[in-house]
Amino acid sequence: MSHFSDRIQFYPLKNLLEHISSPDELRRLDPDDLPRLAKETRGFIIDIVATKEGHLGASLGTVELTIALHYVFDTPDDKLIWDVGHQAYGHKILTGRKSIFDTNRQLGGISGFPRRTESEYDAFGTGHSSTSISAILGMAIASRLQENTERQHIAVIGDASIASGMAFEALNHLGSTDANVLVILNDNAIGIDPSVGALKKYLTNVKKGTAKEENIFECLNLAYTGPIDGHDISQLLPELERLKSVRGPRLLHVITTKGKGLEKAEIDQVTYHAPGRFDRFSGEREPSTDNELPLKYQDVFGHTLVELAENNPKITGITPAMPTGSSLKYMMAEFPKRAFDVGIAEQHAVTLAAGMATQGLMPFCVIYSTFLQRAYDQVIHDVALQNLPVIFCIDRAGIVGQDGATHNGIYDMAYLRCIPNLVLFAPMNETELRNGMFTAQLGLPHPIAIRYPRGRGVQQEWRTTFETIEIGSSRELRKGSKIAILSIGHIGNSIAEAIEAFEAGQIGHYDMRFVKPLDKKRLYTIFEHYDFVISIEDGCKAGGFGSAVLEIANEMGHANKLIIMGIDDLFLEHGTAGEVRHLAKIDAEALKNRIKILLDE
Amino acid sequence: MSHFSDRIQFYPLKNLLEHISSPDELRRLDPDDLPRLAKETRGFIIDIVATKEGHLGASLGTVELTIALHYVFDTPDDKLIWDVGHQAYGHKILTGRKSIFDTNRQLGGISGFPRRTESEYDAFGTGHSSTSISAILGMAIASRLQENTERQHIAVIGDASIASGMAFEALNHLGSTDANVLVILNDNAIGIDPSVGALKKYLTNVKKGTAKEENIFECLNLAYTGPIDGHDISQLLPELERLKSVRGPRLLHVITTKGKGLEKAEIDQVTYHAPGRFDRFSGEREPSTDNELPLKYQDVFGHTLVELAENNPKITGITPAMPTGSSLKYMMAEFPKRAFDVGIAEQHAVTLAAGMATQGLMPFCVIYSTFLQRAYDQVIHDVALQNLPVIFCIDRAGIVGQDGATHNGIYDMAYLRCIPNLVLFAPMNETELRNGMFTAQLGLPHPIAIRYPRGRGVQQEWRTTFETIEIGSSRELRKGSKIAILSIGHIGNSIAEAIEAFEAGQIGHYDMRFVKPLDKKRLYTIFEHYDFVISIEDGCKAGGFGSAVLEIANEMGHANKLIIMGIDDLFLEHGTAGEVRHLAKIDAEALKNRIKILLDE
Repeated sequence: MSHFSDRIQFYPLKNLLEHISSPDELRRLDPDDLPRLAKETRGFIIDIVATKEGHLGASLGTVELTIALHYVFDTPDDKLIWDVGHQAYGHKILTGRKSIFDTNRQLGGISGFPRRTESEYDAFGTGHSSTSISAILGMAIASRLQENTERQHIAVIGDASIASGMAFEALNHLGSTDANVLVILNDNAIGIDPSVGALKKYLTNVKKGTAKEENIFECLNLAYTGPIDGHDISQLLPELERLKSVRGPRLLHVITTKGKGLEKAEIDQVTYHAPGRFDRFSGEREPSTDNELPLKYQDVFGHTLVELAENNPKITGITPAMPTGSSLKYMMAEFPKRAFDVGIAEQHAVTLAAGMATQGLMPFCVIYSTFLQRAYDQVIHDVALQNLPVIFCIDRAGIVGQDGATHNGIYDMAYLRCIPNLVLFAPMNETELRNGMFTAQLGLPHPIAIRYPRGRGVQQEWRTTFETIEIGSSRELRKGSKIAILSIGHIGNSIAEAIEAFEAGQIGHYDMRFVKPLDKKRLYTIFEHYDFVISIEDGCKAGGFGSAVLEIANEMGHANKLIIMGIDDLFLEHGTAGEVRHLAKIDAEALKNRIKILLDE
Repeated sequence: MSHFSDRIQFYPLKNLLEHISSPDELRRLDPDDLPRLAKETRGFIIDIVATKEGHLGASLGTVELTIALHYVFDTPDDKLIWDVGHQAYGHKILTGRKSIFDTNRQLGGISGFPRRTESEYDAFGTGHSSTSISAILGMAIASRLQENTERQHIAVIGDASIASGMAFEALNHLGSTDANVLVILNDNAIGIDPSVGALKKYLTNVKKGTAKEENIFECLNLAYTGPIDGHDISQLLPELERLKSVRGPRLLHVITTKGKGLEKAEIDQVTYHAPGRFDRFSGEREPSTDNELPLKYQDVFGHTLVELAENNPKITGITPAMPTGSSLKYMMAEFPKRAFDVGIAEQHAVTLAAGMATQGLMPFCVIYSTFLQRAYDQVIHDVALQNLPVIFCIDRAGIVGQDGATHNGIYDMAYLRCIPNLVLFAPMNETELRNGMFTAQLGLPHPIAIRYPRGRGVQQEWRTTFETIEIGSSRELRKGSKIAILSIGHIGNSIAEAIEAFEAGQIGHYDMRFVKPLDKKRLYTIFEHYDFVISIEDGCKAGGFGSAVLEIANEMGHANKLIIMGIDDLFLEHGTAGEVRHLAKIDAEALKNRIKILLDE
């Protein structure tokens, strides 16, 4: 590595990492010390994540790449974007956040994702996949217009993310420009679950050397090099130095191993994407609580779908790249020909479901609430407009907690309830979820969306007998006289108990079940009967469930009785779901306070 | 063509087309007669569109392909999807809609796009681009599960549409399956405007024969054949017959000429995409009224952007494939380095703008309202969450008329107003549009969306002096006492005149300007002062502008005074914009009736 020999070995120290608090300091190291720094950084990540939890595998896979990039390029003036951002822990540690890295994902702590407000080294906030090439191209165009020809622009994107449509759109544009952009394809053959699709197979052939002469990226007019070993700093440095000296759209194909350096994480890459607590030496996870009751809504969904699919051959399942997270994996295991992981492809997932529905199938299309934002047009244009009976299962609806603002599924009620033909159901508990799914597959004349939160339900018995739910019906849980609480979907035990704690007869409670169609008859009775009505939702107030109730109440001439509790018009910070709900004032305490004020009036 | 020689020549007639009312009848023709049928069909399309208007060029380019597909394949049992659907006029004419084709796009007439409720031959409703491969794959999977191995599944998609991310997602999935799908790439090097991007350049190389050995589609594991001449039925028939006999994912590359058979349409393909009325023989269009006053909002936008860009070097412009429709073409001509057509890539367009904004540029990202649905997540996750001052210009907001339900931009106020940080402005006239754009480029601390309709404004003088608009301010247009009308955005002369026609002093009129932030101070005064308040909007009632006003009014304790006028919870049919507004009861007559009823109370 002669071209680095003029550098001085600054730190003949036991621990290099503790002396590195910025890329400037990193760049003063001798290149031969970098593998040692990589080892220390990897150890640091493992130590913290073992006890504080977080995303492990992706960041273990990019330690060498992170070091090499900051070593070669002049960050933060050179722009570096980490697609999705699961893999950016090393980046955070080496860019001044080492001492606060143990606050990762905690309330008041650093974000689990890159974030512009957190560091000048975070050129672009990420969280959802496949945005990096578009953003970096925008930056490169800006540099060009500002006559800065020296600045480098780098996007690091995984093989699962680059297969998403948005990334293709960006590559297609990039390849028609002479923008000064380096795309680094971090190819580990896995996203959160193993990568799928034709491109993945193709990349495998590239790695094996069986792909033919012209590379798919060259077809798109990118200067391709690779594949090289992304864990070998002695390969990374000279190649990045070379790429730094050329201009225009370039793509470097780097092969890495997700979970690199922790044996168990390398072997079980899906589990160790975000393994929870584990032993820092052995990698052994704390005993699984997955089967403890109450079950997670995800598992109730997953097992129930298998149960229904056994009796109804029309049922299919679709997930865009979340078979494990959504628990569609159970159906994929039982009915592999009827359950599909389509990769990070929400748009395609929805219209694929629409196509199936035209032929009499009953597709359950399970998508996280914030990711369904990626397929909003397809829900309107391909499903609802044609009134096709697709069954959307909207996972991670409401506040998700530690993943933070990028992942909070708090807009779905607002953005879905304006769509004609669409039924929008939110189960309050596991039985309601099961019965909603059961009802949907009996054959509705409409599409339906079933929204439920991340995490555990509230029942000790979840595998209850199926019953049909009348579309648009609500449930009276408790009769009252003065104040009616209208809740939608899962509220958790604490809110239910808060309501129960008030004297019988005063406070009524209604599980409204359907955001759309709303149970107008029930609402009419409630608004006639009660002095006050409080709606409470795990979603944004603007245009959400309470707003829908208000529209009906206004038509009835009873609007002024309604108090809407929901999430204010701001992006919420990360923290545990309970902490965030408390700060958002939609928890049991906030509801109790509201009720008390009204009772005192 | 020996393999067709067993067919009988049924119609030794002067006019073949008049005897063809279904593909069954078409299939009874001798293949040698098909070129004649193509000529007649082309003539039929020209004759009708010349007087009734509509989309011309795309359908002229697919006449032979349409005939060949229905001749070879067993439609409607075999499934055939026309991506976007602009090119499906020939298909409509040959599948039983010849006699009503002159009602195309008219109220009560057939739709300008394929539509499942219109014909069993329309396997999937289209309108927005790039959906066909996803939908056809869903159908093919359904056939497989239903153990129908004979059924063929065909998607015809243009080169502009296949470059969109959603189509790539579908190809990526398709190539990893053995689904019985034939994708026909209808390559005419143009969408509505000329195709752009690296893929387009690549396809040009394929056509020239300079592309290397492995084809990009082969990289995605599709069996590629072509390119062949899409106007030569003698090439199309045997190749389609061959493709019919094989199974699995296949792609046939067909070269066509948009506007084929009408010289002017072949030469000026952009204008003749939808040329308005023209002479059926010469192709000469009726004299342009483009420069007549009032100008179209699109042109006010386009010219104003040039004016602003001349003085503000930070301004850039971005359109996803609509330079002509949006009038960004003016800036592209004046400042080619600062204005970008990124192709049918709404997701990329928005995040590209976000990337530019991080570097201090002021991107004007102009997207049609319904197409912005394609980039909803990017607006939330990449722009609003990072509070980047991107300037969205939302064209075709409100009812668009003859393009129908797929293109009505009536959800944007509902789906955008729930997004934190985002300012949502709707100009009432040309001056307001200009001043909103002027204000935005002064440098706001937030992203802003400016929504305006398709078509003409209301002013004889449009190039007015720029003035700053206070964000969140409204305008009192007329003082009143009994009823306040709150309008948002363009209302046209008829509604303004309807309000004026009432006796002075009774009816007040307020241009609220901002859906978000709403002018709460003004609303407080209005709700205090007036007996009734009517909100009126060119958008859906559920969660829209009126709903936002209602939320504020409810907080003030004045909700019951409000009557919300807007579009009910259903998809609207096509017709002229005026006709559709009338049926939706948001026109001057509907408003007058409302006011009269209230005055009589």
